[in-house]
Amino acid sequence: MFDRTAFILVAPQMGENIGAAARAMMNFGITDLRLVRPRDGWPNDRAIDMGAGAFDHIHVQVFDTLSDAAADLHKLYATTARARDMVKPVFTPDAVVRDAKAVQGGHAAQVGFVFGPERTGLENDDLSRCHAIINVPTNPDFSSLNLGQCVLLIAYALSSVRSYGDSAVDDKIVPMGDSAPVTQDKLDEFLSRLERELDDTRFFKTGSVKAAMVRNIRNMFVRNDLSDQEVKTLHGIVSALRGSKIE
Amino acid sequence: MFDRTAFILVAPQMGENIGAAARAMMNFGITDLRLVRPRDGWPNDRAIDMGAGAFDHIHVQVFDTLSDAAADLHKLYATTARARDMVKPVFTPDAVVRDAKAVQGGHAAQVGFVFGPERTGLENDDLSRCHAIINVPTNPDFSSLNLGQCVLLIAYALSSVRSYGDSAVDDKIVPMGDSAPVTQDKLDEFLSRLERELDDTRFFKTGSVKAAMVRNIRNMFVRNDLSDQEVKTLHGIVSALRGSKIE
Repeated sequence: MFDRTAFILVAPQMGENIGAAARAMMNFGITDLRLVRPRDGWPNDRAIDMGAGAFDHIHVQVFDTLSDAAADLHKLYATTARARDMVKPVFTPDAVVRDAKAVQGGHAAQVGFVFGPERTGLENDDLSRCHAIINVPTNPDFSSLNLGQCVLLIAYALSSVRSYGDSAVDDKIVPMGDSAPVTQDKLDEFLSRLERELDDTRFFKTGSVKAAMVRNIRNMFVRNDLSDQEVKTLHGIVSALRGSKIE
Repeated sequence: MFDRTAFILVAPQMGENIGAAARAMMNFGITDLRLVRPRDGWPNDRAIDMGAGAFDHIHVQVFDTLSDAAADLHKLYATTARARDMVKPVFTPDAVVRDAKAVQGGHAAQVGFVFGPERTGLENDDLSRCHAIINVPTNPDFSSLNLGQCVLLIAYALSSVRSYGDSAVDDKIVPMGDSAPVTQDKLDEFLSRLERELDDTRFFKTGSVKAAMVRNIRNMFVRNDLSDQEVKTLHGIVSALRGSKIE
């Protein structure tokens, strides 16, 4: 499982926190770290110092966008403290790990855990790319967890599922037959196409409404564990609906 | 459970670590902290600073020995990275929490989680007072967890059991804001309409293929926990895609 799990830090501010995240990942044997627009660039001395040797083992890649960072992944889980009116599943860490394991176990899928910048958290556009939200059930009167602690808890939750065996993890499986889970780039391609086609039909009345509607549409499809075959079918449906009046 | 759970730090060295431990406890609603021979005495300014308000809620007591600190408790669990030839159960955090919960549930017992000093860990005499050992299953090649992280993981494990045991927290929630889950008749109405529109466009090449494709399309939408608002959006999308060529 672990060589198919990536941790993605979006716009991390302090190098120390990147280092703490890397240590927490290594504590539980996770080695695929992806950085999206780290504020102080990469490599970063403070991160390396705080990493205490973790970066000798961790493979770090840097990207401009979450979309680029997630291109080869099948499913993304966002960590955020705030619920923001997104129609998207909210999992506890243990439940999300069972979900990830079901996805991976069946199809050799790759999953990504997405962490937002310190203080501000993930922006809505990035959130809308994620299949589900992870909410750590902290004390509502004292809920602040820093980035390193959050990474530690998710990495630990992943490790517990591994340690305790597979019997408990089969409560959700989406059988896909000969198909495989769709990759993010293919899903993105479909959603971008749908947005373009809807633009052509003046579906979006005004620019201000459009951003929210695009997010809502994205949420609907992204959370749905689509297979590559299903995304092909969706393309076919859009072509059929659009093309019919040409004849 | 939580008002019957104590965290005991034996001979903690750095005030910062006591503060980090207090924050981690408060993150998960645990408020009984017992210090055995803290190196720099108590109260400790560095601990208070690092605690970021946690000590407003946490009840701190100071003792000379672990024996004194644990006098009113029924069962003690020791955290240590090293197995030391002690014939004593070794639990993972989740297993120890289930054990603690069983003890508490059955007998209104109080349990204590015992953490040793930074670097050296618990001494054998103190270990021998503990009923069981907790071993966090870290990567053997990179196992160092600091005191605050260790407290955080145990507190989190306690909290997960609380959440799931009482079924107060569902593993998976799809928040829908002002919307409600769509009823089957409304969903059916949309899917029938989609099928009709696709029929009009000759999307389904032959009758025999059609039945299977209709099922596949249905599966895609039915398994997705759609809200009533989302189904309205889907109607809008189909109308837009279909209608655009009429203009």
